Amino acid sequence: MVTSNQRLEARIGYQFSRPELCERALTHRSFGPENNERLEFLGDAVLDLVITQMLYLRFEDADEGQLSLLRASLVKGPSLATVARQLQLGAFISLGSGERKTGGADRDSNLANVLEALIGAIYLDAGLDICRARIESWFAAKLTTLSPQAIEKDPKSRLQEYLQKTGRPLPEYRLLEKRGQAHARVFAITCSLPDTGRQTTAEDSSRKKAERAAALAMLEVLGEQL
Amino acid sequence: MVTSNQRLEARIGYQFSRPELCERALTHRSFGPENNERLEFLGDAVLDLVITQMLYLRFEDADEGQLSLLRASLVKGPSLATVARQLQLGAFISLGSGERKTGGADRDSNLANVLEALIGAIYLDAGLDICRARIESWFAAKLTTLSPQAIEKDPKSRLQEYLQKTGRPLPEYRLLEKRGQAHARVFAITCSLPDTGRQTTAEDSSRKKAERAAALAMLEVLGEQL
Repeated sequence: MVTSNQRLEARIGYQFSRPELCERALTHRSFGPENNERLEFLGDAVLDLVITQMLYLRFEDADEGQLSLLRASLVKGPSLATVARQLQLGAFISLGSGERKTGGADRDSNLANVLEALIGAIYLDAGLDICRARIESWFAAKLTTLSPQAIEKDPKSRLQEYLQKTGRPLPEYRLLEKRGQAHARVFAITCSLPDTGRQTTAEDSSRKKAERAAALAMLEVLGEQL
Repeated sequence: MVTSNQRLEARIGYQFSRPELCERALTHRSFGPENNERLEFLGDAVLDLVITQMLYLRFEDADEGQLSLLRASLVKGPSLATVARQLQLGAFISLGSGERKTGGADRDSNLANVLEALIGAIYLDAGLDICRARIESWFAAKLTTLSPQAIEKDPKSRLQEYLQKTGRPLPEYRLLEKRGQAHARVFAITCSLPDTGRQTTAEDSSRKKAERAAALAMLEVLGEQL
């Protein structure tokens, strides 16, 4: 007789030495306190590293802004849910009755979380290399469609390249203000050009985002003179 | 004669098979186009996984919200800069002249980036296990001071536990609205209790943050009746 676990293992192409890890990965928080949330937290970091390394090695000319956008397109919730649906994981999730009745087995967020939790479970069971091979096979279709050329370079990189091409010093980014509470922080960043003193300012929810927005504003200012 | 590279390798406790990776990791973007930005992008993901796994194994009772806060405290820029200063990395960074003159060798962001780039370089040179051993030794002092008890649980977990303890169904989080452009997105989330129909709403710059804020608002509403 083929068990449910064996059917799942055939779909994902991996047989667990510690089946309890697999069961834990398939258990939604609505099912009880022994659920997959911690494994999902771990799996998210494993997936991030595997995808990051794959992109790093494959796109030698992409800058870190492009790599970051490519990675985001692969690891965002709906992309993970698509992969989880291709593996037909929905049928294997242990859900509380309310969650099941309201369509929890086909909810994007639940599917994405189960996929990440399974990645965490395989990583703990077998290590990075075997886990990487599984992730690469699951994401193979998505990976063939990726193109860094389709993604505009990060504004900070574009500004830097423009300035270097014309022999000018690099821009300086300074934190002007950080306000709001931990859950709703706002960063105000100034981008300034040391040789002309020209400045732009932008705000956003992270320092990095605000720097990008300030660089974009500077590119627009410079654009008038290009 | 002891070279600069040998001095650095003695400090970080690792000898590179491919010294060009080490040199690249030490090169700030102000020095030229062949700089450490891509290695930093990779090293950031390596560091995240190593720290995540360490916290996952060490704090068995911490929920993913607590783990996330503990991780953030370890990998934030100023923490990385502290580690980089202990390793005295500043003296080894290759900087453009403008960057050097304005104190770039002791700037938090440059030090943090060089540390992440070195982690990426060691990972490529020797793999995850050797890289993990280096990271663990560099962060040993910081790790001894960590306490998940000092960190309040995530509001979503607290709300869930409260409801489960009283035998009530889990809250539902729904996306009410997503507005703004990609660089300044705002998510409005509704948290509702299926048995009473009670609702709270919150907005923030990510779906997860808005869910937490909505859960916190619900805890406050329920607090009146506890």
